[in-house]
Amino acid sequence: MGKASDAPRMPKRQYEARVPLLRAGLVQMQVSLQRSPFSVLLVIAGDEASGKGDVVNILNGWLDPRGVDTMAFHELSDEERERPPMWRYWRSLPPRGRMAIFSGGWHADALAADPRSPRELADFDHTHARLAHFEGLLADSGTLIVKIWLRLSKATQRARLRELEEDPDTAWRVSADDWKSHRDYDRLARTGERMRRATHRPEAPWHVIDAADTRSRNLAVGDTLLARFHEHVRRREKIATRHARRPTRTVPLRPAGLRRLQALPLDHRLSEADYEAKRDKWLGRLNRAVRHAAELGRSIVWVFEGWDAAGKGGAIRRLTSAIDARDCRVIPVAKPTDEEKSHHYLWRFWRHVPRAGRVTIYDRSWYGRVLVERLEGFCTEPEWRRAYAELKDFEEQLTDHGIIVLKFWLHLSKEEQLRRFRDREGTDYKRHKINAEDWRNRRKWHDYEVAVGDMLALASSPRAPWHLVAANNKRFARLEVLKSSCQRIMAALEG
Amino acid sequence: MGKASDAPRMPKRQYEARVPLLRAGLVQMQVSLQRSPFSVLLVIAGDEASGKGDVVNILNGWLDPRGVDTMAFHELSDEERERPPMWRYWRSLPPRGRMAIFSGGWHADALAADPRSPRELADFDHTHARLAHFEGLLADSGTLIVKIWLRLSKATQRARLRELEEDPDTAWRVSADDWKSHRDYDRLARTGERMRRATHRPEAPWHVIDAADTRSRNLAVGDTLLARFHEHVRRREKIATRHARRPTRTVPLRPAGLRRLQALPLDHRLSEADYEAKRDKWLGRLNRAVRHAAELGRSIVWVFEGWDAAGKGGAIRRLTSAIDARDCRVIPVAKPTDEEKSHHYLWRFWRHVPRAGRVTIYDRSWYGRVLVERLEGFCTEPEWRRAYAELKDFEEQLTDHGIIVLKFWLHLSKEEQLRRFRDREGTDYKRHKINAEDWRNRRKWHDYEVAVGDMLALASSPRAPWHLVAANNKRFARLEVLKSSCQRIMAALEG
Repeated sequence: MGKASDAPRMPKRQYEARVPLLRAGLVQMQVSLQRSPFSVLLVIAGDEASGKGDVVNILNGWLDPRGVDTMAFHELSDEERERPPMWRYWRSLPPRGRMAIFSGGWHADALAADPRSPRELADFDHTHARLAHFEGLLADSGTLIVKIWLRLSKATQRARLRELEEDPDTAWRVSADDWKSHRDYDRLARTGERMRRATHRPEAPWHVIDAADTRSRNLAVGDTLLARFHEHVRRREKIATRHARRPTRTVPLRPAGLRRLQALPLDHRLSEADYEAKRDKWLGRLNRAVRHAAELGRSIVWVFEGWDAAGKGGAIRRLTSAIDARDCRVIPVAKPTDEEKSHHYLWRFWRHVPRAGRVTIYDRSWYGRVLVERLEGFCTEPEWRRAYAELKDFEEQLTDHGIIVLKFWLHLSKEEQLRRFRDREGTDYKRHKINAEDWRNRRKWHDYEVAVGDMLALASSPRAPWHLVAANNKRFARLEVLKSSCQRIMAALEG
Repeated sequence: MGKASDAPRMPKRQYEARVPLLRAGLVQMQVSLQRSPFSVLLVIAGDEASGKGDVVNILNGWLDPRGVDTMAFHELSDEERERPPMWRYWRSLPPRGRMAIFSGGWHADALAADPRSPRELADFDHTHARLAHFEGLLADSGTLIVKIWLRLSKATQRARLRELEEDPDTAWRVSADDWKSHRDYDRLARTGERMRRATHRPEAPWHVIDAADTRSRNLAVGDTLLARFHEHVRRREKIATRHARRPTRTVPLRPAGLRRLQALPLDHRLSEADYEAKRDKWLGRLNRAVRHAAELGRSIVWVFEGWDAAGKGGAIRRLTSAIDARDCRVIPVAKPTDEEKSHHYLWRFWRHVPRAGRVTIYDRSWYGRVLVERLEGFCTEPEWRRAYAELKDFEEQLTDHGIIVLKFWLHLSKEEQLRRFRDREGTDYKRHKINAEDWRNRRKWHDYEVAVGDMLALASSPRAPWHLVAANNKRFARLEVLKSSCQRIMAALEG
């Protein structure tokens, strides 16, 4: 190996003199990473026969293997196949303080499509927009992303393949496919270039490294990783000195959302008998709709948000009474666990995306980012501002995969909430449902209204719209949820 | 439904009068469970057509669905198939403070084997021993296990199947298999009885409930759950008043282990040149052995334990240098995360059991239970005493599934450890590797020796023996690890 090119080779002695220094630097980096509030993602991609696997193994030899996870993305498992394509990458992300090496990954998946027709190329570009968004989202949350592309010229590739074939120990590594991709070198190189251009961003740039000489290649990969790490630490120190401020006044970004919220008539009449008759009708329909979706392998995700005491729990109970409990999970979203806290804020929701034909009901959700986190200063203003796009993108990935997404905001008047709080305090078996925090949130009623309005205006999309439900009358609200859910599922299955 | 028997039926009015009380009790139970340091596992099993699915759904309707996870065990996913059979159940266990309903599960798996020949029946009984152990292990850690068996007589089963078939809404639920199992009623009933007898233990008894009348059945299930919950809480309160004591003196359970440890010659000579030649030979062999294992779908699990500064990290590095990093994960075992803490102590190790053909290296392991946890009083004496059997059973499950288990204790003299500690303190880039805890552990040298001796004597088995490695000489130790690993893997692949 390493002889495959006419390029000047690095002498062995020079290489062996440099390696110990680089190793020491890398291990020092790992020690410092352990105490850092971010993770490192190193992506190794490149042309055929450029030695991606060798580089991964050499790096693992240089690093302390206890601090790095190497993820290889072989064939999809069935659990992965049944979720949106990015699910397998989300589940493989390193927590803060750790490093992962991705061998292959989303770029390799995109390239494997080998697009040729204009339509395929358009899909290819669409995929890249998604990947660039994903990388941006990780980078924004502090992840250091280092993307390496190992490049081989066509001549060097041919020489490298021949060399591998001639050695009985490595001949097994060369397949007919490798020679085929060698013949298609020019097209594949153009495709790779197109992919890199589309996913090259300041926060996640591509580092193209010449792989002709294996020694220079190895050192260049290590040096790049180290340089990016130190640059990242320096940049973060600068940012850290600017303190996050607690918001003082909550001003709508899109007043239209707030107007829509305030215009909702809240009081409705519905007799018990009328309610029961209608409820049973819609429960039956919902049961059939959910079973039909399951038969087609379509999953359903429900999102419930609403004021404290708006009746989310009751609405969820009516819903689940129509669904086979064995196919359905209710995820109550409260304080994140420490594993969840050590990941991107969306990680804990990706975890529970249902398998094909199953149902997940989120009782509160990713919208906490633009509600409680916005208002309590748990995230910075740039963070919650960009969250609208992040949440829409997340839901688009679900709907693109065929998952039916249903979002409900249960709306209440301030007076009705007060009545329910007092009722809870006065009733023995309800007292556990109310605490000081509920009263605190209530004092921020106006701020919440503004944040909810912005959420309605900025995070609705045709395939994942917000349903506003008038909840002063519990029976009316439950029926509304049943009815809209049922109608949207049936429409999605027909559409 | 519910008419399928000649048994006296509970009048509707009586049922409807009882349900609200039961529901209130169940919801109150859930509130109390949230604050309790244990989890609840409700298993619903039973004869064909006894209404297992209905019971699960009715319970879900009575309970607050946000506090209960219903797990159905359909076909194995490929990620599950590649791990030992109990892996899928471990990953589905509820954390403390929550409840899970298992519909089907390990008992159903065992029954599905439908054993007939003496050999099959022997296997069946062996499986039960494992299941009883699993349930005992959960119960010992505080989990409340409620196992319900819904029983139908043969005549009632026939009537129930006919009834389901006659109703166009439920006819799809009756298959040819159902009628076949009806014809085999007597044999299946005997098999079920045999299973229940084998897995009926004081801490996880079977509750056999007559399912002829659906109303009585539903109430009986709810009542049983509630009664067991309250009994569990009462019993725990009694236990909690007995305080766990910190151990005062560490006395060997099996002095033979300590003798074996102390008899190990620790100092060996090995020249650098000699080491390098042998190392390269064994690295090459190890690489081939691991690749061969992967081709056969055999996974490998390495366990490293040893004194502080005994050189576990260095030994692991040499090992990983011979293994493709893309198929190998190193799991450093330190303080558990809070998700891990909310589960059984073995849960965090089950999580990382490798898929077919992959490698997991545990840097420290489940043996912490009988080492640091025993000595620091992190668990009670009965807990660490029964751990030897639990750990052996865990490893037996791995080896039964074809996983190759390699366990190394890196042994050091007290003087050599002191030399290494001082060296670490005196070297800039090593200082992070030593802290006050290392010095504290060192003062308990004798206690640790006793605990290690017991571990060697009580947790070795022919397929998962402990390898004692003399580690005063680092090169010698690394070579020993390479050599024994390689020999054991080759033997396992041939055997």
